[in-house]
Amino acid sequence: MTIRNARHPFYDFCDEALAGIRKQGRYRTFTPLARDAERYPVYEEALPESDISREVVVWSSNDYLGMGVEPEVCEAAISAIREHGAGAGGTRNIAGTSPLHKALEAELAALHGKEAGLLFGSGYVSNQASLQTILTSMPGWICFSDRLNHASMIAGIKGARGSTTVIYEHNDLADLEARLAAAPADAPKLIAFESVYSMDGDISDIAGTCALARKYNALTYIDEVHAVGLYGEQGGGVTQRDGVADQVDIIEGTLAKGFGVHGGYITASSQIVDYLRSTASGFIFTTSLPPSVVAAALASVKMVRAQNWRREKMFERVNTFRAKMRAAGVEFTMTPSHIVPVPVGNAERCKVISKRLLNEYGLYATPINYPTVPQGTERLRLTPGPFHTDEMMDEMVTALKTLFAEVPLAAFTKEPALTEAA
Amino acid sequence: MTIRNARHPFYDFCDEALAGIRKQGRYRTFTPLARDAERYPVYEEALPESDISREVVVWSSNDYLGMGVEPEVCEAAISAIREHGAGAGGTRNIAGTSPLHKALEAELAALHGKEAGLLFGSGYVSNQASLQTILTSMPGWICFSDRLNHASMIAGIKGARGSTTVIYEHNDLADLEARLAAAPADAPKLIAFESVYSMDGDISDIAGTCALARKYNALTYIDEVHAVGLYGEQGGGVTQRDGVADQVDIIEGTLAKGFGVHGGYITASSQIVDYLRSTASGFIFTTSLPPSVVAAALASVKMVRAQNWRREKMFERVNTFRAKMRAAGVEFTMTPSHIVPVPVGNAERCKVISKRLLNEYGLYATPINYPTVPQGTERLRLTPGPFHTDEMMDEMVTALKTLFAEVPLAAFTKEPALTEAA
Repeated sequence: MTIRNARHPFYDFCDEALAGIRKQGRYRTFTPLARDAERYPVYEEALPESDISREVVVWSSNDYLGMGVEPEVCEAAISAIREHGAGAGGTRNIAGTSPLHKALEAELAALHGKEAGLLFGSGYVSNQASLQTILTSMPGWICFSDRLNHASMIAGIKGARGSTTVIYEHNDLADLEARLAAAPADAPKLIAFESVYSMDGDISDIAGTCALARKYNALTYIDEVHAVGLYGEQGGGVTQRDGVADQVDIIEGTLAKGFGVHGGYITASSQIVDYLRSTASGFIFTTSLPPSVVAAALASVKMVRAQNWRREKMFERVNTFRAKMRAAGVEFTMTPSHIVPVPVGNAERCKVISKRLLNEYGLYATPINYPTVPQGTERLRLTPGPFHTDEMMDEMVTALKTLFAEVPLAAFTKEPALTEAA
Repeated sequence: MTIRNARHPFYDFCDEALAGIRKQGRYRTFTPLARDAERYPVYEEALPESDISREVVVWSSNDYLGMGVEPEVCEAAISAIREHGAGAGGTRNIAGTSPLHKALEAELAALHGKEAGLLFGSGYVSNQASLQTILTSMPGWICFSDRLNHASMIAGIKGARGSTTVIYEHNDLADLEARLAAAPADAPKLIAFESVYSMDGDISDIAGTCALARKYNALTYIDEVHAVGLYGEQGGGVTQRDGVADQVDIIEGTLAKGFGVHGGYITASSQIVDYLRSTASGFIFTTSLPPSVVAAALASVKMVRAQNWRREKMFERVNTFRAKMRAAGVEFTMTPSHIVPVPVGNAERCKVISKRLLNEYGLYATPINYPTVPQGTERLRLTPGPFHTDEMMDEMVTALKTLFAEVPLAAFTKEPALTEAA
């Protein structure tokens, strides 16, 4: 194999950048895990350099309700493949819009009480394309962005041309108001924030944020990707739970977490959705989601809306897990959401504990290190779900208790580290 | 339904922008078309405001070889759903990497003779994320970009921070060389171009471009999305057909067109792929492709590599269609690719003819209007494939001949229009 152009400086640059990432302990290797649909959250881990695999219980999946392995959801996907094939074959405008796409968009609009919905290839793309297009639309936009917003929102906000970005402190409404008050009154404003912040598991004050938006006439854009399916009596997210969905202009969500399938979306008024449909490059110039993905998501959303017991079951499991952790004296960060961060406090320690969990106990929990979270707040992020049994929980609690004792933080750091999540 | 914030100026802005788009004849309505997997290219069109549907022969699909309806491809997707569920459940780093993902990346690397491959959620994302990340990596990048590059490449190039963009005239190597020669010799350079330009159907001079890249020490990045699967003895694209794959640093492709499924990818040297894997936001912070999509794509790539008769069949069909068009005296633009642009010359005429094709003949060909192509070069873009029969072709040729006579260009424009594709 000839690398003809290896004298271009980019090759050396990549080598050096990768060496730096390794040196900082941030180099990521992806653990190959094959989900067993009939035994979720059990996966098969393919062991490197061999044909052997072993069973692993996964504690880091974002398929929070296990909808991706629900037989009805899977059968909807299979039927759509048999009827329509494996792919969409074109963009939405070029033969890639099936009646399924329209039905799912209508279902999502109904879920959030909005006039219209629009599908994107992923939640990342829905945030990036929507925010970038909105903030490029009129001159003089000012975007007020929560400091901990997701990378996809930041990509859209930074990608906009001609807009100004004002970052406010995380979930700090006093800071947000001070910044809104300091901005020119007649500039078009947008407040971009999330409901559930997935790494810390905290939840924003949506009503309070919307009250400020009214006072200062700002548009509101909320990312509910870690909330849709899980909160509200039909899974419409925290906006539904708090009864404030009608106060938010644009609700963005995903089909890949609580709904267990793939793709992203926004819901909003008909003219905002039609404007994005007609102008957002990341929507227009891309192949539409396969009919099988759309059919599975549609089945999932309908089930999740109707079956509140799925949410109750998840929270019962989360609470049971927390009780077991507490009883065993294993530290975790209490959050108002379904997410259970377990502080580890050092990148290397985080990797060691994660690796030993996998190799010695067959338990998978992704190490969450910088730059995903600030240095010193490295953690395991656990997402107990309806399929985690009491026995699986006991195994995890025992393993964590053992490993935290055997792998002390002091072995990795000379100074006392911040072990609380930010 | 309350729109609480309708006094925000963005609502009026959207209304006005949409009115403007309608006035220019550019407002798009998506025709709902359900593909019949057993009868491709036959689709069912759901008629609005009714439960009735009718059969339509689609001439605009980008599933060029019909791989999306191949039973083996569909069965691979179905098996993966039964084994692993409907979605991936996480990002590549967070339990979303299955052995299937790794196998497909290795297969794509082998297809293009590169060291490594990397999957993205779509071809759009692969271009945007890769180009933006590369052009932000080192200070002083100059990107030489073909004037007709796809929106996704432009999104990545414009999204980069700190780089300079130099646009060269489409497929004009003299212009490219003049601009390379005028640039500072020591600045890191990248040439971004496509092999098959999908709207005009022309093909770039890859060897000539790479010779300039060597002379001026520029990295080369080629988009082969409308070529992979179709050109080269294993479907490795025009770079394979021309024997120049080893001269291009980064080859980008899609799994959604010639391979008939969904998703995008790049292939390159191991350090470039590893650098993008480790740093590209649009790769890291997004749910990985569902195992079923990956399994279907893997089956498709393997079949397309091994079965050259699929490419031969497609080109036989394209040539037969052109012969029928020529014999009937229906104007089309001759191209060196599989794409058959039929010039129409005016946006309104293009919509009328497309609509009458659909309503009176049951034939679907998307009208291609500004801003996808320059004004005056509006066209129908036909993609005959292995499944278009002689009889279907005769129907299309007869319909076009009739409609071009009944709907003359003179009815829409006072001045002589450019009816040749640019």
